[in-house]
Amino acid sequence: MPHSKPLTGEFDYIAWIRQRVIADSRVPIGIGDDAALVRFSPNRDVIVTTDMLLEGVHFDLQIATPYQVGRKALGVNLSDIAAMAGIPVAATVALGVTETGGLEQAEELFRGIHEMAAEFNVAIVGGDTNRSRDGLVISITLLGEAGPHGCVKRGGARAGDWILTTGSLGGSIRAKHLTFIPRVREAAVLHDRYHLHSMIDLSDGLAADLGHVLEESACGAVLQADSIPINDLARIDSGTTQPLEHALYDGEDFELVFTLGEGDARRLLADQPLDVPVTHIGVIVESGEYLLQLADGSTRPVERRGYDHFRR
Amino acid sequence: MPHSKPLTGEFDYIAWIRQRVIADSRVPIGIGDDAALVRFSPNRDVIVTTDMLLEGVHFDLQIATPYQVGRKALGVNLSDIAAMAGIPVAATVALGVTETGGLEQAEELFRGIHEMAAEFNVAIVGGDTNRSRDGLVISITLLGEAGPHGCVKRGGARAGDWILTTGSLGGSIRAKHLTFIPRVREAAVLHDRYHLHSMIDLSDGLAADLGHVLEESACGAVLQADSIPINDLARIDSGTTQPLEHALYDGEDFELVFTLGEGDARRLLADQPLDVPVTHIGVIVESGEYLLQLADGSTRPVERRGYDHFRR
Repeated sequence: MPHSKPLTGEFDYIAWIRQRVIADSRVPIGIGDDAALVRFSPNRDVIVTTDMLLEGVHFDLQIATPYQVGRKALGVNLSDIAAMAGIPVAATVALGVTETGGLEQAEELFRGIHEMAAEFNVAIVGGDTNRSRDGLVISITLLGEAGPHGCVKRGGARAGDWILTTGSLGGSIRAKHLTFIPRVREAAVLHDRYHLHSMIDLSDGLAADLGHVLEESACGAVLQADSIPINDLARIDSGTTQPLEHALYDGEDFELVFTLGEGDARRLLADQPLDVPVTHIGVIVESGEYLLQLADGSTRPVERRGYDHFRR
Repeated sequence: MPHSKPLTGEFDYIAWIRQRVIADSRVPIGIGDDAALVRFSPNRDVIVTTDMLLEGVHFDLQIATPYQVGRKALGVNLSDIAAMAGIPVAATVALGVTETGGLEQAEELFRGIHEMAAEFNVAIVGGDTNRSRDGLVISITLLGEAGPHGCVKRGGARAGDWILTTGSLGGSIRAKHLTFIPRVREAAVLHDRYHLHSMIDLSDGLAADLGHVLEESACGAVLQADSIPINDLARIDSGTTQPLEHALYDGEDFELVFTLGEGDARRLLADQPLDVPVTHIGVIVESGEYLLQLADGSTRPVERRGYDHFRR
């Protein structure tokens, strides 16, 4: 175990954080009062999302640095705001830190959170720091606001919609789950230029997450096996699991999957308006079926199972 | 260990919670999408606070029931909103639950959160449920809004202000820390009828929390030892610590301490507008001194130490 400065109490750490948080016109009262005040744009709904990461369940400090864990803890929340096509505004950070990890670990963790926050113009407005008996715990709540066109929900897919995805899928556990860039800017461009019917971010895996869209939209889907963009990380020899299986069932891609009308979809695919490729992977159908169509035209059911953080 | 139903995955528990969350006109999108949408009153700032409770650090399930822990986890956040004289609106709940605790424990915990939420008209708008290796973890973020008169800050105390407290102090660890009613309604009455200059809720103890007010307001205080209302729980034989010491340095009273001009304070003390007594315990002074005046007129410094959750 590396030599660590001991933790010297909650107040010192919060004072340390407070020094590093810059003034923000959206935050009339920041860290240092009983609660923070945040000023949102007039007449906009507030978007709220929360995610907790626990050491030994969601991350392993033998593999990930505290800095990477900090970035990821905010990044998963940013990805949720992106999935609504929202604009991130402010975050609170609740921590449980261990005596053995010490102050350096807590500082590196916060450095990761803080850098990610700066990259997406998120104000850190509050925190709660505690001792944890066993393992680091990070719980972040991120607040955002809807843009002028409102939000994109999971439940808006319609029969005939084309299903598109950003980037490529699978194998995230090999690296991308710690280094992904949440698709906040991409979602804003898409929502601004095209009429998106539904959207979700991929945290549980394509099969499970598109399944959530189908459930909320009360419809089905047919995915084209040949069209699904597979990440190179999913092609690395991994025993018996085929790359396509990784792309369907691996979690934590943090890409966006969305649906829109055929005309808009064709225009978007021709435009390719993002820095990452956008790919047509299937269509929404009226029935409740959820199928994968193979190159030979045959189909098989998509299992709605995914990457279950809870059972891992 | 009692027989427990096994945890059957994150989705089942979230579905269970979703069934129990009632529709709310302030929540255009609730649990079941990537994030929730919350609609606040027009032109009101949003108040944000967050608190994490960890088993073995903040509570002991040999003493507290999961139901009580659930109530407390939301209650400490409600107390923070009360300290701003804010109106609670919506909460997110992130959990780490253990295999050994099982589904019953998670359900009882949520029942406590849900009942407290109903009592204070708080919508549960989102959650994240995870497995924890060691011990229950609850992290709640509570959103509120300022009332028509805005918020009350820690930093507004002025020399000459009278210092008042609701209820009685000390000995909370014997029971009250699990059964307290957050002073949300009391704060609203006070803020509506009197011109409060500063306010804080007592979580770290009177000495430390009033110390925060003094620090943020850049002034000092003289407390009258004889005037401090001591809770009966602090009078139970507890070894060498005197009841007054408990009232000054014990944590988790969750009462409100506030300051206001002498005229307003005299009117308030005569009115006694709350269901709990309000007591005059001292005055704000210009210098940075922080003193306790005893019955014989002598003074001694108040130590700013308090109940440090972090070191417990």
